[in-house]
Amino acid sequence: MRKISESTIHRLSLYYRTLVSLQRERYITVSSRELAKRDKLTPAQVRKDLSFFGSFGTRGLGYPVNELKDKIASILGLNRTWNVALVGVGNVGSALVSYKEFPRQGFVIKKIFDNDQRKIGKNHKGILVSDVRNLAKELKEDRIEIVVLAVPASAAQSVVDEVVSAGVHTILNFAPTNLKVPDNVVLRTVNMAMELEHLSFALSNRGKIKEL
Amino acid sequence: MRKISESTIHRLSLYYRTLVSLQRERYITVSSRELAKRDKLTPAQVRKDLSFFGSFGTRGLGYPVNELKDKIASILGLNRTWNVALVGVGNVGSALVSYKEFPRQGFVIKKIFDNDQRKIGKNHKGILVSDVRNLAKELKEDRIEIVVLAVPASAAQSVVDEVVSAGVHTILNFAPTNLKVPDNVVLRTVNMAMELEHLSFALSNRGKIKEL
Repeated sequence: MRKISESTIHRLSLYYRTLVSLQRERYITVSSRELAKRDKLTPAQVRKDLSFFGSFGTRGLGYPVNELKDKIASILGLNRTWNVALVGVGNVGSALVSYKEFPRQGFVIKKIFDNDQRKIGKNHKGILVSDVRNLAKELKEDRIEIVVLAVPASAAQSVVDEVVSAGVHTILNFAPTNLKVPDNVVLRTVNMAMELEHLSFALSNRGKIKEL
Repeated sequence: MRKISESTIHRLSLYYRTLVSLQRERYITVSSRELAKRDKLTPAQVRKDLSFFGSFGTRGLGYPVNELKDKIASILGLNRTWNVALVGVGNVGSALVSYKEFPRQGFVIKKIFDNDQRKIGKNHKGILVSDVRNLAKELKEDRIEIVVLAVPASAAQSVVDEVVSAGVHTILNFAPTNLKVPDNVVLRTVNMAMELEHLSFALSNRGKIKEL
């Protein structure tokens, strides 16, 4: 398989959600034009992306909705469950535990880690909170595949180092800081302030530049 | 000014954060190589991005850290404050109110809207919670420039329609759903599940494809 860019994966996630909607609306097939319209892309882009993973479409008939949805789910790893651990159950972490999209997509939070003695040993919305001092040991025991990091920026690098040394190489980071990881680790950082900067950029430059 | 892509804005946000760090580390100038290394980009990419906004660098000396930071802050609209309203103060909304990066970057949450009678009229972490039924009226009165949406998916479209009709054209959406907005509205959606899909994709395809 050729190299796939981050933006292609992002578009596959969009197609997946649109196909779930189409299925709910009882569509049997969908044209590249309809997919493009709903996801605000060009039909050529849609056809290019989908041809990348083998040819699904039939000229004049379009793509079979169920088959295409299942194929994309499989490419994105959504046709199975993943063992997720959450480190840090403050405001952001707590919101993530309640986020219903996670289990729906197969991301199952198996355990929470925190350093707050009042939280350790108790259940948080049905999930056991462990002492972060046992992080490496328990990540292995629980066969955790993905770590979600919701700790303060100051603590993030040392937690990441421990996660990596425990052999977990896929990390979603909500701490607003740049983290250093080895090349074989897949780290994504969600920075809410950076998202807002896209908006303040647009507001600052309205009229001066063409819209994005 | 030419058209600027979303990914360029994203990189400007990265440079901004790196320059803040460099300033803290008392750097006076920085090379494109050092910037590239810290942000995991190529020096050519850094030079291209920065040349886009006028020539800052001096061959052999690099870029002046303070000046470049201020310039990027100004491009991103971070050299002033923005009036932000939050709609929906459940788990995600509550986390966003506590998110210290927002006020630090000039994004000031002026008012919260909710439909829960137990919350309306009270302060949530120092910010007044208004009845969402008064949304359009109060967005105008409070001169809100950016709306952050943290309502359930089922409510999101009707809230967005009202926000747009009230004249607010920059929206950050945390509801896990595709929203329809007119072309002159800048809408960004943060979907945490989609972020995790980048990781499950990487896990599913490890070894099969080159890393991203």
